[in-house]
Amino acid sequence: MPHDIRVVTETELRGVLGLDRALVDVVEQAFAALAGEGVVMPPILSMALHAANGEVDVKTAYLPGFDGFAIKVSPGFFDNPQLGLPSLNGLMILFSAKTGLVQALFLDNGYLTDLRTAAAGAVAARHLAPEEIATAGVIGTGVQARLQMQAAHLERPFERLLVWGRDPQKAARCAADLAETLGVTVETVSDIGALVAQSQLVVTTTPSREPLITHDMLHPGLHITAMGSDQEGKCEISPRVLAQADVYVADRLTQTGLMGELAAAKKAGLSPYSETEIGQIIDGSAEGRIDNRQVTICDLTGTGAQDTAIASHVSALLNGTATGTVITA
Amino acid sequence: MPHDIRVVTETELRGVLGLDRALVDVVEQAFAALAGEGVVMPPILSMALHAANGEVDVKTAYLPGFDGFAIKVSPGFFDNPQLGLPSLNGLMILFSAKTGLVQALFLDNGYLTDLRTAAAGAVAARHLAPEEIATAGVIGTGVQARLQMQAAHLERPFERLLVWGRDPQKAARCAADLAETLGVTVETVSDIGALVAQSQLVVTTTPSREPLITHDMLHPGLHITAMGSDQEGKCEISPRVLAQADVYVADRLTQTGLMGELAAAKKAGLSPYSETEIGQIIDGSAEGRIDNRQVTICDLTGTGAQDTAIASHVSALLNGTATGTVITA
Repeated sequence: MPHDIRVVTETELRGVLGLDRALVDVVEQAFAALAGEGVVMPPILSMALHAANGEVDVKTAYLPGFDGFAIKVSPGFFDNPQLGLPSLNGLMILFSAKTGLVQALFLDNGYLTDLRTAAAGAVAARHLAPEEIATAGVIGTGVQARLQMQAAHLERPFERLLVWGRDPQKAARCAADLAETLGVTVETVSDIGALVAQSQLVVTTTPSREPLITHDMLHPGLHITAMGSDQEGKCEISPRVLAQADVYVADRLTQTGLMGELAAAKKAGLSPYSETEIGQIIDGSAEGRIDNRQVTICDLTGTGAQDTAIASHVSALLNGTATGTVITA
Repeated sequence: MPHDIRVVTETELRGVLGLDRALVDVVEQAFAALAGEGVVMPPILSMALHAANGEVDVKTAYLPGFDGFAIKVSPGFFDNPQLGLPSLNGLMILFSAKTGLVQALFLDNGYLTDLRTAAAGAVAARHLAPEEIATAGVIGTGVQARLQMQAAHLERPFERLLVWGRDPQKAARCAADLAETLGVTVETVSDIGALVAQSQLVVTTTPSREPLITHDMLHPGLHITAMGSDQEGKCEISPRVLAQADVYVADRLTQTGLMGELAAAKKAGLSPYSETEIGQIIDGSAEGRIDNRQVTICDLTGTGAQDTAIASHVSALLNGTATGTVITA
C-alpha cells in the first residue's frame, strides 16, 4: 500500500528552519524524555572505511511523546576536500513511531545535525549558565563556534564575546561573522587563559586531543559547555577541571564516559563530584546550578534523541506546505 | 556542493529488477568478498519499540571491489496488519565508497531484501546442492517460500516440488503459484518427514522457534538451506541435524552463532563437524560438498554484504535510464 514520503533538500531545509528558541524547546523536551522511562537509544553503529579515509555513523532514538523517530546517517570522508567536496554530509530519515513507515527524507548534508548540536548548547546555557552573562567566550572557529554562540546568545544575551582559534586569520573571520550576526562587541584573543578569565560562559568547539582548558583557569561563576569531543581520544578540558567543578552534567552519561570529557577524566582516575544528565535537570529530578558562584560543566557528545527531536520539529513545520518533493512509494 | 540523488520506488524497482542469475552472480561475488580481506561489516543496529510492537534493524557492509556501500533500514511493526498496512517495509541507501555521498535511495518496502535473500539461497544451491535434483521441497508458504524455490530452480532445474505449510489453504495457494511460475509439478504434503524423504534439496522459510527438521529425516544426498532464523530464539532445524551433517556452511559465522541454526545447536552443546562460510567455498579456500551422497546444510541469517551487492547491482542497471526521481541535494 503506497504512501507519501516527503523528500527535502538542504537548501529547502535552510529556507524553513534556523536556530531559534522553538527548536531549543524541542531539543530540551527530547533531553527530558531521554532521562525518563521508555526511551530506546541503541549504541551508535559505526563503520570505518580505512581505504577511503572515511567513517560512517548511524544514530537513532525512540522517545516517548514523539510521534516519529529519526535514523541519521553521517558519513565523514576526510580526503573529500582534495576532490572539492565537503568532508561531512549525510541524511536523516523520519519514521512513524506507530507504523514504522518512512515519513520523510531530509537530505540535509549535516545541516540538521549542526542545528540540533547548537540547540543542545542553548539548553545547557538555559539550565546551567549563571543568570547574567556579560562576556561569553568561544574556543574554535568553525561552523559550531558560530552556531554555539548564536545558541548561547538566545538564552543569555551577552554584550561582549571573545574568540580564540589556533589560526589567527580564521579567528578574525569568525569574530567578524559573529559581530555581524549577533550585533555585539567581538574580540579575538591569543590566550585561552585570558579568554576564560574574562568570560562567564565558555563553549569549546574543537576536535582537540589535548586539554585546552585547565584547572588553573577556573573561577567562580563560570559555565563551560564542551561539545567538541565525540570520539574516544578527543579531549578539550583537563581531567582536573571535571574533578574541581561543582556540577558536571552530560547529555548522556553512557556516551560521555566513552567518548566525551568524562572518558578522559576517568582514564586519568579522576571523577566529578556528581554525574548528572541534562534531562534530569530539565525534569527536576536532579539539581543543576544552585548559585551564581558555582563552576558548572556540560559535556555534549550528541545523541540520537536530538535527531529525533529536530526531524520531528522540521516535519511539523513542513506539514501543510508544498516544500520538498513528494514521492509515493 | 549539491549532487544528484536518484530516488526509486518499489514499483519502479519491480520494473527493472527480478530474480535472475545476474543477481545471483553479484550476491555470490559479495559473499566471496565477505570471506576476504578488507571487509567492514559492523554488528546490526537493532531497536525494539515495545510500545508499538515494532522493531527496526539497520545493516551495512563495506566490501572491497564494490564502488558503493548500502545502509539498509528494516522496520517491522507487527500490529500494522490491523491497520491494513504491511508489517515489513523500509529502504536502502546507496553511498559512494569513495566520498560517502548519497548516490541513490531505494524506497523498496523490503523488495530488494526479498530478492537478495532469495539470491543467497541460489548461491547456496549452486555450491552445495547435489548436481541433480529431481525433487525439491519447501517448508513455509510465504513470499520467501515462493522466491527461494524460484532461486533454487535457477541453479538446479528440478521437475517436481513439494510444499509443506501449517495452514493447508496457504500451502495450496503457494503450490498453485509455484506451479504456474516454474512450470513444474507441485504437490502439497502434510508431513515434513515425507517431504524431506522425497527431496534432494529442502529450503526452510519459517519463523519457527521449534525444530521442524529432525535428525531422523536425514538421508544421503540431501541439501538443506535454512533461511528463516534471523533472531535469537528462532530455530528450524534440530541441533542433531547440524551435528550429523557432513558439511555445515554459514553466510556469516558470527551471525549464525548468535541468531541462526548454529545458535540453537551451540545452546544444546552440539557442534557441526566443521564451520565454514559460503564465501570460503566460493573463493576456494574451503571445501563444500565433495560427493553426491553427503548431507549439507546452509544456514542463512542475512548480511549487509547482500544489501551492498543488490543496491550496487540495481544502481548499475538504472545507470543511464530515466527511472526514478532525480533530486539535487
